[in-house]
Amino acid sequence: MKRGIAQYQVGEVFDYFLLIKTAAKSVASNGKPFLTLLLKDTTGEIDSKLWEATQEDEELFKQGELVKVHGEIGQFRNRPQLKIHSIRPVQSTDGVQVSDFIEKAPVQKEDLMERVTEAIFEMKNANLQRITRHFVKKYQEEFFTYPAAVRNHHNYVSGLAHHIFSMLNIAQQLKNMYPEINKDLLYAGIILHDLGKIKELSGSTSPSYTLEGKLIGHIPIMVEEIQTVAKELQIEGEEVTVLQHMVISHHGKAEWGSPKPPLIREAELLHQIDMIDAQMNTLNRALKKVGPGEFTERIYSLDQRTFYKPSFEE
Amino acid sequence: MKRGIAQYQVGEVFDYFLLIKTAAKSVASNGKPFLTLLLKDTTGEIDSKLWEATQEDEELFKQGELVKVHGEIGQFRNRPQLKIHSIRPVQSTDGVQVSDFIEKAPVQKEDLMERVTEAIFEMKNANLQRITRHFVKKYQEEFFTYPAAVRNHHNYVSGLAHHIFSMLNIAQQLKNMYPEINKDLLYAGIILHDLGKIKELSGSTSPSYTLEGKLIGHIPIMVEEIQTVAKELQIEGEEVTVLQHMVISHHGKAEWGSPKPPLIREAELLHQIDMIDAQMNTLNRALKKVGPGEFTERIYSLDQRTFYKPSFEE
Amino acid sequence: MKRGIAQYQVGEVFDYFLLIKTAAKSVASNGKPFLTLLLKDTTGEIDSKLWEATQEDEELFKQGELVKVHGEIGQFRNRPQLKIHSIRPVQSTDGVQVSDFIEKAPVQKEDLMERVTEAIFEMKNANLQRITRHFVKKYQEEFFTYPAAVRNHHNYVSGLAHHIFSMLNIAQQLKNMYPEINKDLLYAGIILHDLGKIKELSGSTSPSYTLEGKLIGHIPIMVEEIQTVAKELQIEGEEVTVLQHMVISHHGKAEWGSPKPPLIREAELLHQIDMIDAQMNTLNRALKKVGPGEFTERIYSLDQRTFYKPSFEE
Amino acid sequence: MKRGIAQYQVGEVFDYFLLIKTAAKSVASNGKPFLTLLLKDTTGEIDSKLWEATQEDEELFKQGELVKVHGEIGQFRNRPQLKIHSIRPVQSTDGVQVSDFIEKAPVQKEDLMERVTEAIFEMKNANLQRITRHFVKKYQEEFFTYPAAVRNHHNYVSGLAHHIFSMLNIAQQLKNMYPEINKDLLYAGIILHDLGKIKELSGSTSPSYTLEGKLIGHIPIMVEEIQTVAKELQIEGEEVTVLQHMVISHHGKAEWGSPKPPLIREAELLHQIDMIDAQMNTLNRALKKVGPGEFTERIYSLDQRTFYKPSFEE
Amino acid sequence: MKRGIAQYQVGEVFDYFLLIKTAAKSVASNGKPFLTLLLKDTTGEIDSKLWEATQEDEELFKQGELVKVHGEIGQFRNRPQLKIHSIRPVQSTDGVQVSDFIEKAPVQKEDLMERVTEAIFEMKNANLQRITRHFVKKYQEEFFTYPAAVRNHHNYVSGLAHHIFSMLNIAQQLKNMYPEINKDLLYAGIILHDLGKIKELSGSTSPSYTLEGKLIGHIPIMVEEIQTVAKELQIEGEEVTVLQHMVISHHGKAEWGSPKPPLIREAELLHQIDMIDAQMNTLNRALKKVGPGEFTERIYSLDQRTFYKPSFEE
Amino acid sequence: MKRGIAQYQVGEVFDYFLLIKTAAKSVASNGKPFLTLLLKDTTGEIDSKLWEATQEDEELFKQGELVKVHGEIGQFRNRPQLKIHSIRPVQSTDGVQVSDFIEKAPVQKEDLMERVTEAIFEMKNANLQRITRHFVKKYQEEFFTYPAAVRNHHNYVSGLAHHIFSMLNIAQQLKNMYPEINKDLLYAGIILHDLGKIKELSGSTSPSYTLEGKLIGHIPIMVEEIQTVAKELQIEGEEVTVLQHMVISHHGKAEWGSPKPPLIREAELLHQIDMIDAQMNTLNRALKKVGPGEFTERIYSLDQRTFYKPSFEE
Repeated sequence: MKRGIAQYQVGEVFDYFLLIKTAAKSVASNGKPFLTLLLKDTTGEIDSKLWEATQEDEELFKQGELVKVHGEIGQFRNRPQLKIHSIRPVQSTDGVQVSDFIEKAPVQKEDLMERVTEAIFEMKNANLQRITRHFVKKYQEEFFTYPAAVRNHHNYVSGLAHHIFSMLNIAQQLKNMYPEINKDLLYAGIILHDLGKIKELSGSTSPSYTLEGKLIGHIPIMVEEIQTVAKELQIEGEEVTVLQHMVISHHGKAEWGSPKPPLIREAELLHQIDMIDAQMNTLNRALKKVGPGEFTERIYSLDQRTFYKPSFEE
Repeated sequence: MKRGIAQYQVGEVFDYFLLIKTAAKSVASNGKPFLTLLLKDTTGEIDSKLWEATQEDEELFKQGELVKVHGEIGQFRNRPQLKIHSIRPVQSTDGVQVSDFIEKAPVQKEDLMERVTEAIFEMKNANLQRITRHFVKKYQEEFFTYPAAVRNHHNYVSGLAHHIFSMLNIAQQLKNMYPEINKDLLYAGIILHDLGKIKELSGSTSPSYTLEGKLIGHIPIMVEEIQTVAKELQIEGEEVTVLQHMVISHHGKAEWGSPKPPLIREAELLHQIDMIDAQMNTLNRALKKVGPGEFTERIYSLDQRTFYKPSFEE
Repeated sequence: MKRGIAQYQVGEVFDYFLLIKTAAKSVASNGKPFLTLLLKDTTGEIDSKLWEATQEDEELFKQGELVKVHGEIGQFRNRPQLKIHSIRPVQSTDGVQVSDFIEKAPVQKEDLMERVTEAIFEMKNANLQRITRHFVKKYQEEFFTYPAAVRNHHNYVSGLAHHIFSMLNIAQQLKNMYPEINKDLLYAGIILHDLGKIKELSGSTSPSYTLEGKLIGHIPIMVEEIQTVAKELQIEGEEVTVLQHMVISHHGKAEWGSPKPPLIREAELLHQIDMIDAQMNTLNRALKKVGPGEFTERIYSLDQRTFYKPSFEE
Repeated sequence: MKRGIAQYQVGEVFDYFLLIKTAAKSVASNGKPFLTLLLKDTTGEIDSKLWEATQEDEELFKQGELVKVHGEIGQFRNRPQLKIHSIRPVQSTDGVQVSDFIEKAPVQKEDLMERVTEAIFEMKNANLQRITRHFVKKYQEEFFTYPAAVRNHHNYVSGLAHHIFSMLNIAQQLKNMYPEINKDLLYAGIILHDLGKIKELSGSTSPSYTLEGKLIGHIPIMVEEIQTVAKELQIEGEEVTVLQHMVISHHGKAEWGSPKPPLIREAELLHQIDMIDAQMNTLNRALKKVGPGEFTERIYSLDQRTFYKPSFEE
Repeated sequence: MKRGIAQYQVGEVFDYFLLIKTAAKSVASNGKPFLTLLLKDTTGEIDSKLWEATQEDEELFKQGELVKVHGEIGQFRNRPQLKIHSIRPVQSTDGVQVSDFIEKAPVQKEDLMERVTEAIFEMKNANLQRITRHFVKKYQEEFFTYPAAVRNHHNYVSGLAHHIFSMLNIAQQLKNMYPEINKDLLYAGIILHDLGKIKELSGSTSPSYTLEGKLIGHIPIMVEEIQTVAKELQIEGEEVTVLQHMVISHHGKAEWGSPKPPLIREAELLHQIDMIDAQMNTLNRALKKVGPGEFTERIYSLDQRTFYKPSFEE
Repeated sequence: MKRGIAQYQVGEVFDYFLLIKTAAKSVASNGKPFLTLLLKDTTGEIDSKLWEATQEDEELFKQGELVKVHGEIGQFRNRPQLKIHSIRPVQSTDGVQVSDFIEKAPVQKEDLMERVTEAIFEMKNANLQRITRHFVKKYQEEFFTYPAAVRNHHNYVSGLAHHIFSMLNIAQQLKNMYPEINKDLLYAGIILHDLGKIKELSGSTSPSYTLEGKLIGHIPIMVEEIQTVAKELQIEGEEVTVLQHMVISHHGKAEWGSPKPPLIREAELLHQIDMIDAQMNTLNRALKKVGPGEFTERIYSLDQRTFYKPSFEE
């Protein structure tokens, strides 16, 4: 397999395709404009400067474009920087496409869909089942393509569904161990808890926060949606309130964005399972980048800790 | 005017009507049942015990009943206690009614309604105006009878509307001083911010928290209601999101129950005005009970502080 | 099955055996001595007073003794109190024994032992395996009889092993889902993390804190023991330090007693699994005491929250 | 009206007068000295470098001097920077003066004085009135020229008096709504609360902190001054202590610099009014810089929040 | 030596003199008045009830009176209570006086005065010396009789001077070890730091907080006094500001009542020495009450910790 | 005496020996490698760049090497930078050695040893004495050469012993003032409290954290060592547990790394003495760098405070 941009060392020559993640124009101290391009493939990102950029360059090299770059890996302020020797837009004959350059969940979309369908099928409480099924259908497209976050954990295409997939598996096991758990409620909570992100984020690739996301946030958005759907389906009864509570409390604490802490067993479990899967996703990806006997970079979402990979790991 | 229960001293004889706020049955150390009655009028409350209570007593003296009591003010663990000599249910010939024994807002319902109507009338933004008017109409009965809280501030009949009334007046003055303020937005925020309490609390007198109140809370309830009403009125546009933000952020901080802090000028102001009116209501009622040169009891909602009334106050 | 003390209502007559959990002598206001006995069976506890206690009573009715009590369930300050009519020490012919009155893990000791043995058997890293096996052997008796805590979670006979049993099961499932996990390390951490409690607590029934427990605590005690055992077994290598880290960091944060936060993936997981099992144990026992549609008492170890059992639970 | 420095875009030519806010000499990598000048007018500030500065340049271009600059607006690290083509000191024939380049309160000094005088005139408590009048007279010059802060809110000439002016207006309105308020006390508190800043800050333009400001702070400085003035005027009585309390508690909490929290109704109000006016001043100035549908920069004194200007604002 | 009240056991008969610390009248459940007397000598305090108190009793047995009591040590809610058999006011022939019943510093007043005088004498900086000497002279009486606190540490007659005495000794030793210390400044800070308590507290025995103490607090009171004295002595110069800073920062943190943290080496040291002496005083008095191998009661001012006296202590 | 690197001003020529503290290779924007050298002597450190470094340069100029440098003091981003004109490795004929360039404790090693030996000699409790003596002997070399920290206080050769030396002196004085102190326990605690740093840090000069230091930390390491030594010496008894407690609690609070807070008088004192000596060491070194009337740089370990040196200091 072709090496990704993250695998190149300082001093090596790079000559392959990359996706422009962001592009910005500045004026250099000599008064001439230049472009700052953040280039990426599925393994990582690299900064680069295109000096003395023409008007045409500016129009060709925009966010979301695929380019072929020839250059050398240099270093600027302790971070790698790609020194561009030549750059051109991708051509149809190149045989590459944008989706090859964007990170995706390691599980196939079909498997994600199957697992969610299966979980809904297992439910016995008709109210919970109908509401959950309705949402999956209503947002089918976004449900299986959105990331779970802008950064931190599951921040890749289908990350949201991948997160739900893993959480459903953990929930199933815990149900075996603690038979008191109401599986229907826990499954419904897992499937719906982060669905408000479909309105909080702007899209499935390179998402940013929407105005609704910034001013309301995915938790109250989803509480509101559950109410709307319940009315639409003419479902009344405590299940609606309890399901809204599952969503509203899943961050665990007021300081973390939940105006009510978990006050139902399955709500507490939902919070715990959410944390475990988010942390494992973050940790595994960080540890993959270091060798045995090394520490990772500081991980922002884990209190800035840096984790050690024991030297006796194979 | 007849003295209220709060004005009696230890040792005095009391012989008048009172409302039973709560009633509970216990078994004394001699094995005989007795009733613990919390009795009240508009000036305050007093504990009392009805010893050796019969089955009939138990049925007569329940929460919400008016009674005529003859007894003496005693003291138990530093708190006054009414020693009942005789007690009987109120009769139609007594000429008293429950509403005479319940604290109400010091402003007439008609004045409260007029002020709210006037504020809505002043609005120029049609979207904000229509949503606000719709709510006032939809919940007309509760809007003008509910308290603003179970305890702390404005915890009396029509307390919610009284709180809104005062806040609208403060807002009007601030608009004069800071012309940049968007009055429509601020008025709409003030009128709607606490309306979720109509679902959070069980009723206008002696309210307790509903299940929805405990598991969801008045803030997300109201965010959801605004969305529903906007859809009903077919209103789209940023006003809806911004109005939801006004509600969601009005507690000011995540720790205080707002999943988003105020991010709009009028939202910040709404939070400040809410605090001022709540604190003035609490403080004025506490200071009314002490004389110049004295300190109040500790006030729970004001960080347990005890306030001083200067001796040079008239 | 015979009703336990927790199932009796105020006013009922009780006439059966109970275990004296604590016994204290006081002097009544009439100058005569009396005994305050806290009596228990596996369902709960009840306070009682033995008035005008003789010197002989004082010697007969001590902590740890089984007694036959005839009395009536009364009430004192909102808590049930057993009014003793007569009381006598248990006789050999009564056919009851202390162990019938003490709460135990719901899983048999043999099953607990088998699960731990199986987990150790699965380990492939010889250093981790030898250290873990050594500890289980060294403290075999205490390992399978100690509680996991004085109060809160798993505070019953064999609670420590029961806690480890559940955690091993969760770990096994998570390993299936996250293959990156080092199972040997996680299993060893689970089996050893709380073993310092054997020195922190005074015994398997009615435990109190030892001086070592109060001044040092189970975490540093266990870190020290791992070092000692490693030396004894002549094991050197990073496994020893890493295993000590698993123990030292398992409370998750400095404020919760871990001088180092988890800095290894399996240490973070150990902390999470510990929390889940502790909370589920606490929650399930609290929810068992209430019916659908009711809230539990405030739970100290869960931030004083009170949990709701939905009315649609069967 | 002439455009201010804040209205220029990158790439434009600037050719007008500016005030040197700070000037610093450094040595460039080529060993030659250069000057870093922070230049300003009433609309904002801009950085600039004067390369290869001579000994004479250094003497001419000092803090506080007015200069005529010809140059181009460039950009350095995402911030605008003025590239100086030529620079010269202002001449008497230029017809500009320093005060034209310094931000001032939007209310005339005479109006500020009148409002304060009026408020003092309204007071009925002779002790409070005499103390307040004495201070205004004693510090007449500073009272009406000092800023209220080095940065954040009202950080411009006459900012202190402007802040007092607005607070008096708010207080007057609140008195109408809450007649229990002791207006004399509240007015005296408002007029005096920040007066210690006259000793805390070094002057009315470009102020820095004095040694007394750094080691003691404006709150204790003012408490001390009130005592001194009261002695001078031979005023005794609770008003002195209560007025000192108004000052000492006006930051609201120990963490915010008030060794005592407000323990008097008017002290609590003073704190609230202070916050409202400070925040409105900060917010209005930040929102003025952005258009509808945009967010402001992060505002340090408002918990680093960034505020949104709704797109339906005219 | 006669046994003190703290040395009596439950069941013993007491027959000696005690001082009435507080006296309060209540009405018993039988409607008859009784007195609650808190009685004390230098070893401790005990509660007692005088049942069926007459009007005359009420006038005789007031706070501050010495009485002869005959009674028995009983117990009420786990605390000792003195059951009064007979009680009478002290007579001139009894040969006891109030001062024998009040706890005093263990060092003689003369020695305290000498040590302070000596420290002032050692100072070389005339400004610091004159200000310090002036204060000691001005408040000579209170300086050597006031306690350092209402409760916690040095809460006995001459406690303030005793605290200063110990702190001066520690300071002298530290000066030997760290010659960089400015001894004059540290000595002046120690002697003056708590002197505001003379106005914060109501007197040298059984002190309560004055209004000034409650509304202003001893720290700002003293800052103000230093300024006044400096003016009186016509001392100008940085010593005044620095000395005020020593006082204002001696609690170490804003949350602990210091609006400025220590920003001068000697201010930091003053805070440390203050803490050491306060804690040693508290700890030594708590540990004196328990035997080797025992824990003290929870100590409020030391974060509610309970301290252990090792069993190998002689 | 020769001026140290910290005494040079920008613009001056430097021509003397320096020690390479760290060396790193980078690639310049022109593609050529350069070395970043951090150079030091006992007075301080300075950054420098060696442009266009050859392969040979890279091998010659490594961490720990002594070099002769000729260059000029320039400035880069407000920090001094040494512009190297020429550089060469030290030669045997230069007559300088590494130890001349490394900061050391201001007290001679012999005096440090003598003081510790004397303290141990004074102990009367045989258990405490034997354990303490054993440690000093076991780690004799490291005990008298290790620093007490990587940065902050006593971060120089023999800093650990110097810290112990000062603390023993303070303890001796406090014992004189508070005779209740158990001197043996306090001395043993002082001598052993930081000894775990010998395993936490990598060496006596330019130390970094070891894996054991990062994952376990010096406190639990030392608790474990005390147990091991006690077993080795066959010492049993409470002294061992109490001594472990002294070590475990010496940081004072859980948040600061002590899983148990001090629960013994001498443990509390140990914490206080540790703080005083650490702060005095930090403060004295920071204040030495500024003149009277100036403030120091922000001191990280003292809450980022900046300290003032009064202008009346000689």
